[in-house]
Amino acid sequence: MGEFIKNIEKAIADLQNGKFILIYDDDSREGETDLVIASEFATPESIKTMRKDGGGLIFLMTSKDVANKLKLPFLADMYSDINDKYPVLKELVPNDIPYDTKSSFSLYINHRDTFTGITDIDRSLTMKRFAKLTKKIGNLDDGYATQLFGKEFRSPGHVPICVATEKLLDTRKGHTELVISMMKMAEIIPAGSGCEIMGDDGRALSKDKAKEYADQHGLAFLEGKEIVEAWKKWSK
Amino acid sequence: MGEFIKNIEKAIADLQNGKFILIYDDDSREGETDLVIASEFATPESIKTMRKDGGGLIFLMTSKDVANKLKLPFLADMYSDINDKYPVLKELVPNDIPYDTKSSFSLYINHRDTFTGITDIDRSLTMKRFAKLTKKIGNLDDGYATQLFGKEFRSPGHVPICVATEKLLDTRKGHTELVISMMKMAEIIPAGSGCEIMGDDGRALSKDKAKEYADQHGLAFLEGKEIVEAWKKWSK
Repeated sequence: MGEFIKNIEKAIADLQNGKFILIYDDDSREGETDLVIASEFATPESIKTMRKDGGGLIFLMTSKDVANKLKLPFLADMYSDINDKYPVLKELVPNDIPYDTKSSFSLYINHRDTFTGITDIDRSLTMKRFAKLTKKIGNLDDGYATQLFGKEFRSPGHVPICVATEKLLDTRKGHTELVISMMKMAEIIPAGSGCEIMGDDGRALSKDKAKEYADQHGLAFLEGKEIVEAWKKWSK
Repeated sequence: MGEFIKNIEKAIADLQNGKFILIYDDDSREGETDLVIASEFATPESIKTMRKDGGGLIFLMTSKDVANKLKLPFLADMYSDINDKYPVLKELVPNDIPYDTKSSFSLYINHRDTFTGITDIDRSLTMKRFAKLTKKIGNLDDGYATQLFGKEFRSPGHVPICVATEKLLDTRKGHTELVISMMKMAEIIPAGSGCEIMGDDGRALSKDKAKEYADQHGLAFLEGKEIVEAWKKWSK
């Protein structure tokens, strides 16, 4: 129990200080460990670390509150909404995701000051400015927030946004919900940047090897169930 | 001139043999070099090479013919078509891409036999099966091709498809057009897999360093203008 609190506290402090933390979801879900950092601290160096040591998809995470203000849809909802006009979306309907009932993907964006959008400089700029925007729209009404969003960003782009479910860990226990819950507990801007860690065998890096990586780099390693437990206490 | 033909011929033979080739677009466009392989030969090892030595976005490329059969839209067209219903898309309109007038992005897919969709095994499966589907739909009418597509793939997913413009290098000289033109000249299934090569300085790897990489690994290195020239002769 003492060990558990120490883990969560270190991870919260690390997030607040702009360090990476590692989050493994669960054996019964993806079974993947993500390298995660608060987007407000994202630098070209962080993107490089994610692509070199992670190797998966480099993505942004946001809360449902923020997504509502920005009018960001879940892609799956948007696709089912327009599939009369685009019948290919009916054929491609994601009704067989092996580890969850719903994908958390929303739009892919680039900051308008990026060039191609894919370099470390460009992706970190998109991430950092998204965190800044998240902070700025805190007290704005929806229409104005969406306008500000469009003034700064374009879509299609190279950085996918994943949106956490509204009740977070009460309804879904994916990386997006785990990360946004950690950021709420850390009381920092709820915008996270993450990347799955791949192994050398074609699969995701095993939990044990991800722990080794965390130890070697002095990073906190959390499992989803630890975050769920801490969240239950915190959100009461 | 002899050197130029040798370059193109080596690259065509390498594509036919399932090897990577490197394509630099142009100083006046993205100024990026992509690692490219014919998707029919994509293996978990190829994805690993792309994420480790490339580091950019790992994507699929297809021809407009195939996209038409599959009813694959350009995202930018789809977004402008549905932006009354999703006003955020009006705000995010990509009217300021620095190096081109139009993005070639279409949907992001996963093969239905993948698990998370992001591992090397999963992404290579998605790529390889897309090439197989491309071959299969050659003589099919549109409706049936889209059904076959949906039987095998879902969207949203982790592998973006970029669609070449109809007249290829006559209208656009992006990596997608350069690659699909090369595959037509090589007379292989026109489905390509690629990834931009990043440098250690936050930017795309410079042309000179990309050439060094090609030399070290015995890979063909082509510039966009060489492909355009070869294409002009070939397509006459």
